[in-house]
Amino acid sequence: MRIEDVDTPFVMVDLDALEANLVKYHTYYKEHGIGFRPHIKTHKTLAISRMQLEAGAVGITCQKLGEAEVMINGGLVTDILIPYNIIGKQKLERLTALVRRAPITVAVDSEYTALGLSEAASADDVTIGVIIEVEMGFKRTGVATLEGSLELAKVVDGLPGLELKGFMGFPTPPSTRALFQEMIALLDKSGLPHPIVSGGGTGSALLAHEIPELTEYRAGEYLVGGQYHLKNGTHTVEQCSLRAVSTVISRPADDRMFLDAGSKTLSASAYTDGSMGHIVEYPDAIINDASEEHGHVDISACASKPEIGERIQIIPAHPCPCVNEHDELIAVRNGRVEAVWPVHARGKIR
Amino acid sequence: MRIEDVDTPFVMVDLDALEANLVKYHTYYKEHGIGFRPHIKTHKTLAISRMQLEAGAVGITCQKLGEAEVMINGGLVTDILIPYNIIGKQKLERLTALVRRAPITVAVDSEYTALGLSEAASADDVTIGVIIEVEMGFKRTGVATLEGSLELAKVVDGLPGLELKGFMGFPTPPSTRALFQEMIALLDKSGLPHPIVSGGGTGSALLAHEIPELTEYRAGEYLVGGQYHLKNGTHTVEQCSLRAVSTVISRPADDRMFLDAGSKTLSASAYTDGSMGHIVEYPDAIINDASEEHGHVDISACASKPEIGERIQIIPAHPCPCVNEHDELIAVRNGRVEAVWPVHARGKIR
Repeated sequence: MRIEDVDTPFVMVDLDALEANLVKYHTYYKEHGIGFRPHIKTHKTLAISRMQLEAGAVGITCQKLGEAEVMINGGLVTDILIPYNIIGKQKLERLTALVRRAPITVAVDSEYTALGLSEAASADDVTIGVIIEVEMGFKRTGVATLEGSLELAKVVDGLPGLELKGFMGFPTPPSTRALFQEMIALLDKSGLPHPIVSGGGTGSALLAHEIPELTEYRAGEYLVGGQYHLKNGTHTVEQCSLRAVSTVISRPADDRMFLDAGSKTLSASAYTDGSMGHIVEYPDAIINDASEEHGHVDISACASKPEIGERIQIIPAHPCPCVNEHDELIAVRNGRVEAVWPVHARGKIR
Repeated sequence: MRIEDVDTPFVMVDLDALEANLVKYHTYYKEHGIGFRPHIKTHKTLAISRMQLEAGAVGITCQKLGEAEVMINGGLVTDILIPYNIIGKQKLERLTALVRRAPITVAVDSEYTALGLSEAASADDVTIGVIIEVEMGFKRTGVATLEGSLELAKVVDGLPGLELKGFMGFPTPPSTRALFQEMIALLDKSGLPHPIVSGGGTGSALLAHEIPELTEYRAGEYLVGGQYHLKNGTHTVEQCSLRAVSTVISRPADDRMFLDAGSKTLSASAYTDGSMGHIVEYPDAIINDASEEHGHVDISACASKPEIGERIQIIPAHPCPCVNEHDELIAVRNGRVEAVWPVHARGKIR
């Protein structure tokens, strides 16, 4: 079947572009001796996770327990990092069950989380690997100070059922190197272990070597790009392997058209300028809004105007939430459908 | 099972609030003699569609063919309006198959769409009801001028396999009344039928009587509210029956906290001020960003600060895309889980 025979809207992955990104990034990490631990939340599929492990990944990153369950239940028993505070009886029971089936490390940024993990691990007689999430100055999750991070590391190190394994940050551009160095010095001074020093983020993924303290790195979008990485210069149009394919279904005036891809296809996620994706064939068009089933496009700057019935490809603003809208990804090579991949971890929010 | 026993994050519907909205709006339409045709894209479930039909709806509105298929395959054979340009061989074949199973009317805003429908209907020996989508001045889909709308009505009226049934607009606040009056006058002058004159939008749903020309009205969010309707005064907090339930999992500093509900729970849809939902227990908190699995909340204005482990309820910015992230809705009455409704039409983008 050719791509033209698949009815729109749908989301496709260009395999040649995907594989080129895979080789490029995994080679980079091999060359620099940094463990690469891809974040599977971008694609949420078993097939691509397998490709990443075969390319040399040291394990995978899952953002929620439910994603890790999908991977392990799908036969992908590998070393898994869940960089997330896992809280509450139900999730802790699921976690200790999972720890018996595969090596799992989780992140904490509070004593509350650490105590819950320790209690669950002790009750279920397992050991859970734990890293401290250290805030890198971007006001995200993570302990807000290095002193606080050290204190939490000491707590984790002293709790039964937990094994302190190091620390992580996100995102970790080269400018964060000093924080990594100081944190390592603090841990060393207290005699605390840090076999894992983990950085993350596709934006700085090819600059990881500028923080030689890193033992491993987490990135997801490196494989597929996206409008953000396109604008940033991290990916070219050709390197953006994930595209939504859509049909022009309405063109009421010369200044606007409507696509059959709205937020249910692209997600409601927007780039910083408010646009919701880059149209490959009409780079001057601006997707300035999306209702659920319509992409609203300003075409006033387009020299030639798209016609009703025309198909176009969209590089979405953010691939991860876009993929989460879909039950399947169409894997394409040279315009031919090579596989239809179920998005196994779609909707796994717990 | 009580709501406290359901692990977070999840999306719930408060049945008492939902039913009160149902009675309020359906009574209004009965009193004013306007047919009410709820848009099922808000909830995407068979159970709520059934409640709406039992409350007196004249039929339902589905935004995509796939939604209509889900409803009919779920045993809900009723009069269906699909206010959408249906284009392309695959969808047209599905449409003519569906027309044999239930009364279906579709909207068109171009000759391109009308010709495709006529060809498919003729080939399959069925008649498809068609209404003209008239642009109401908000630069959305719809024929941009009344003259153009009339021309398209004439085309539809003359095409085999199609039955011209009137016209629609969206949204239709009272200020659009003149457009309805003029359009009716144009159709009458040309001797063209308009048994359906359809308005839509929850924002003006209780002002429909100010356009007495309307024969029917489409609204979806009236049942559940949402942050937009809360800010607009259309719904009170109590009337917002759809809520995401989430747990505080990180509170690194006094100015911020993080929820286990991110864009995969709330959708990436934001209110006009950029916030992604209203926290019922902490109305001064601002959800200012959402990564996939984290809601990022500014709590600097909160007099009392939420604690890690605390559960809160969020009225999402837009209920429709929020529901589309979920496989099920938890139906709750007085804090007790009364039903778990599959979101049957989730992800039906074609």
